[in-house]
Amino acid sequence: MNSPIIDLSSSPHARMQPVSTTAVKLHDKFWQPRRDINARRTIFSQIKQCRETGRLDNFVRAAGKFDGPFQGIFFNDSDVYKVLEAAGWSLATDPDAALDAEVDELIATVAAAQQPDGYLNTYFMFDREGDRWKNLKDMHELYCAGHLFQAAVAHFRGTGKTSLLQVATKFADCIYKEFGPEGKLAACGHEEAEMGLVELYRVTRDERYLVLAQRMVDARGQTPGMFQNSEYHQDHLPFAKQNKMIGHAVRHVYLCCGAADVVLENGNQGFREGLENLWQSFVTSQMYVTGGAGSRYEGEAFGAKYELPNDRAYTETCAAIGSVMWQFRMLQLTGEHRFADVMEHTIINAVLPGLALDGEHYFYENPLENDGTHRRSAWFGCACCPPNVARLLAQLPGYFASQGEGKLWLHMYADMDVEVPDGDGCIKLAVKADMPWQPDVAIHVVEASGPVRLALRVPVWAIGAKLTHGGVTRDVAAGAYVDVQAACGDTINLHLPQTIQQLTSHPYVSSNYHQTAIQRGGVVYCAEQVDQPLHDVRTLRIPANAAVEVTGSSNLLNGVTTLLLTAAVAPKPSAEEPLYSDLRRAEPPVPAEVVLVPYFAWANRDPGHMRVWLPQV
Amino acid sequence: MNSPIIDLSSSPHARMQPVSTTAVKLHDKFWQPRRDINARRTIFSQIKQCRETGRLDNFVRAAGKFDGPFQGIFFNDSDVYKVLEAAGWSLATDPDAALDAEVDELIATVAAAQQPDGYLNTYFMFDREGDRWKNLKDMHELYCAGHLFQAAVAHFRGTGKTSLLQVATKFADCIYKEFGPEGKLAACGHEEAEMGLVELYRVTRDERYLVLAQRMVDARGQTPGMFQNSEYHQDHLPFAKQNKMIGHAVRHVYLCCGAADVVLENGNQGFREGLENLWQSFVTSQMYVTGGAGSRYEGEAFGAKYELPNDRAYTETCAAIGSVMWQFRMLQLTGEHRFADVMEHTIINAVLPGLALDGEHYFYENPLENDGTHRRSAWFGCACCPPNVARLLAQLPGYFASQGEGKLWLHMYADMDVEVPDGDGCIKLAVKADMPWQPDVAIHVVEASGPVRLALRVPVWAIGAKLTHGGVTRDVAAGAYVDVQAACGDTINLHLPQTIQQLTSHPYVSSNYHQTAIQRGGVVYCAEQVDQPLHDVRTLRIPANAAVEVTGSSNLLNGVTTLLLTAAVAPKPSAEEPLYSDLRRAEPPVPAEVVLVPYFAWANRDPGHMRVWLPQV
Repeated sequence: MNSPIIDLSSSPHARMQPVSTTAVKLHDKFWQPRRDINARRTIFSQIKQCRETGRLDNFVRAAGKFDGPFQGIFFNDSDVYKVLEAAGWSLATDPDAALDAEVDELIATVAAAQQPDGYLNTYFMFDREGDRWKNLKDMHELYCAGHLFQAAVAHFRGTGKTSLLQVATKFADCIYKEFGPEGKLAACGHEEAEMGLVELYRVTRDERYLVLAQRMVDARGQTPGMFQNSEYHQDHLPFAKQNKMIGHAVRHVYLCCGAADVVLENGNQGFREGLENLWQSFVTSQMYVTGGAGSRYEGEAFGAKYELPNDRAYTETCAAIGSVMWQFRMLQLTGEHRFADVMEHTIINAVLPGLALDGEHYFYENPLENDGTHRRSAWFGCACCPPNVARLLAQLPGYFASQGEGKLWLHMYADMDVEVPDGDGCIKLAVKADMPWQPDVAIHVVEASGPVRLALRVPVWAIGAKLTHGGVTRDVAAGAYVDVQAACGDTINLHLPQTIQQLTSHPYVSSNYHQTAIQRGGVVYCAEQVDQPLHDVRTLRIPANAAVEVTGSSNLLNGVTTLLLTAAVAPKPSAEEPLYSDLRRAEPPVPAEVVLVPYFAWANRDPGHMRVWLPQV
Repeated sequence: MNSPIIDLSSSPHARMQPVSTTAVKLHDKFWQPRRDINARRTIFSQIKQCRETGRLDNFVRAAGKFDGPFQGIFFNDSDVYKVLEAAGWSLATDPDAALDAEVDELIATVAAAQQPDGYLNTYFMFDREGDRWKNLKDMHELYCAGHLFQAAVAHFRGTGKTSLLQVATKFADCIYKEFGPEGKLAACGHEEAEMGLVELYRVTRDERYLVLAQRMVDARGQTPGMFQNSEYHQDHLPFAKQNKMIGHAVRHVYLCCGAADVVLENGNQGFREGLENLWQSFVTSQMYVTGGAGSRYEGEAFGAKYELPNDRAYTETCAAIGSVMWQFRMLQLTGEHRFADVMEHTIINAVLPGLALDGEHYFYENPLENDGTHRRSAWFGCACCPPNVARLLAQLPGYFASQGEGKLWLHMYADMDVEVPDGDGCIKLAVKADMPWQPDVAIHVVEASGPVRLALRVPVWAIGAKLTHGGVTRDVAAGAYVDVQAACGDTINLHLPQTIQQLTSHPYVSSNYHQTAIQRGGVVYCAEQVDQPLHDVRTLRIPANAAVEVTGSSNLLNGVTTLLLTAAVAPKPSAEEPLYSDLRRAEPPVPAEVVLVPYFAWANRDPGHMRVWLPQV
């Protein structure tokens, strides 16, 4: 199957187009085991959760075949769609007859709930029929529709079947009547439909869906505002004028995805400017060091610039995934490494923490400091995050490469085989890498009908990177794509040092003042109590230029590289230590060893204090 | 009038009893101007707000004389009661015929709304009659009743009139039928009725009200819990077992007030232990350096231990006032200075910031760090804070002194005359002081029929305090009450140095790490942008032992003492400064002068950045 994450093959403003998820076959030790668990366990367990929590019964009920009340939250349809989307992507790369059959059955259940006019939302049935489209601000109808569209596209690309796509286009046509140029200029309180519609356009080439998506972005920030110009709903300003991430974090990053999708298709200049300004604000003042997004529990929202609390970091897993999708779209649009850097960083450090190593427990919030009480759950009443992780892992190979401007772009490296069409022939690469732990990458051109032009990403963290090709080794700049022309049989060696960075925050981030975070290569580390038998994590102190020993074991946390710091520990405060006392009383810290593990793997062992940012000596 | 804030004259477990608010006549430059504004402007403006926002119409409507819907929030009755309470206290110390007449009219309006069975809540009228007492968790019925009781007691003590007291007791009798020993063991989701009922008992000596108050405290933390054992409602544990401030902050401090009131009357040992454990947790791990309470916007709630964010400090003005009321009760119960220390500190640094210098604008939240966007409002939809400030200022003289164990206790000092009964005679003191700015206090015994035993508070901040009496000067310990036996004509001089403290936080408070706050005497300071013409507040850096010059002017902010620090300033980050960068890049700060003003006076001039905690060099 040809199953690119988004299909930009006919998008006039894209600098590159994603390869099919099937074009990249991962067989590495880091990503593929997670994808295996996802395909074999996670997706099935999520379908089971949907069954057991009434999410599927709601569709049966809407079809008139279940005599009982609507169950759960009014937007629960979206979870079913997201699991279907995950399954769709998974069927492309990991065909599975049992899953295929189960998905067919689920789709039949969904299809049976669709109304004759195309409308489909199991909450707004029977006595609630009259409430359809009455409260776009709060009721997530178009949000659910958007997830149906994405699921339908994934299922179509993954299996070639149009069963869910037919449901989706029928509903989209119904929506067009309401909100197309003959209807109302309006959008959903929770963005999502925008990117779903553009994808539906890419599959069907039905221009109406693109028009609708653009209208939904345009609907925000009008005077008067459809949602009283509320910042929470990104209704405070027209998208082109927005210059700060604001309000509900998942919504704003999803809006950015939708706007980017519109730009990729029609080059909308205003949206492009909005996207650039929002991105700048995000990465220079609103993004956690993990890539996480959303500083406030209240409203699951972005905070002010430089407001980045650690213990109360909200950093919803969904917001990180939304950011990954946004970065990916910006990368295809511009070809600029900065988007790939944030994308990779966010997947590793803000998405992966959302999933337990067992593949069946999830974080909704991802604090950067915790006392050990925050643990992953098997499911949630509001279960947006679990299937969001599943769909990302299912489509993951598609994030590794793109084609454009006659080049094959490699965005990330792993043990993998890559095969993409090239004119009438194809290009096959065999990549050897042990990312994110080891610096060396070997890219072997296994098959090619002619010269192969590669654009190889040198990550921003790979200070001192080197490239060897044709017997010549040269320095390459970190934070760039480097062009290489190769031929069949060539091997290109990249040396991407996993530089250890001892990070400090912008001085306006008062919650991180005089604290430091450790990053090695693309991986952000943390101190977990379970690794510090002698000291309380809260008393650890890091000198400005700490000596770091790189260690690790294949057993620990499914095989991670750990760091051993020659650092310090402050005296543990006595039980009588006052909350506020004279500055001069503080006692100096004494030398101590500190063990750090990757943040993405935290909370998989005994509970205890955890901190990403550690006080400096 | 004899108008003690709470009347402990017959309370068997009180170590002292508050003097009448009329016993202390303030004529100082710090408190009395605020009280004058309160009596002449604030209370009247709040009555006007109640009129204009439909809060009074709701009573007229309930009496069947206003044809329209209920207006505003369902607990809006409480605001009217709190304004009446403020007026009641004010009429005691500042008789005002116009206010007295207006209050009589308001009371008539309230009384007319009372139902034949005594029930009184303007929301639960007409079509909502059937919902009375159906949702104690959310609907604040008993909370509103509690404020009626407090208002009635204040009005009775302030004017001698029983008009509102009759309404209150009639409603209390109605409540007793529902929730007394023959009724249901239950309480309100929002505590408040407990302390109101105990006060009603103290006025009427009707034991049923005390029984009811005790039952309401007892109702929390049962198995099963009346509110699903929710922490938000302090229903997670029986009060005696509670050992951490938790959930909605105002509710928990009000609960502590109610429990303390019960202990004062019946010595309940379990409640007393709960109070002590809660207080310890509060002051050693949950209280802001200002005395403020409540770390989270989400749920207006206490946070975990040591969770004290500055920019997102919620520290609701009402929570600070609740804490003051709690400290005051604990002080009367125990005679221990630590409660007076927190009480004074909280009034100055956490209550006063809630009110603008104009007496007509209010803070609901009191952040310790802000970018200048947080400004005081003339009123709120949920207007709990404004009348809470007004009632505290109206009853303020009552916080200055108590009588007990044959002693007259002075808790705070100001230019004031104190006159209290002493056997058949009286004691009159003339106190000279310029608190909180100047160290010297002179207490002159103007009149006394015999020896006068004084217990004089030496605040915990007055390191190096001295007492002079009868020509002898001696050192006295800070953080204590010192006993003095004096005679008519004596003058006792106290020297209470306004020590400058450069504070640090407990090392587990990660949001204050390597930051310092400055306190002089009982006043916490902050840096406001308007005072730093040359530097951005966010770049100020304070050395460990900063030289401080005490300055000030009678014009600035109605006369405050300011501090001039020989400190430093870090280079202002360029617009390109990354959010995260290598630790070693930081440039050293350079010397600079920093002006600090009292935190209570912030946001009364041009908006700009403000910080209480400032980074250390």
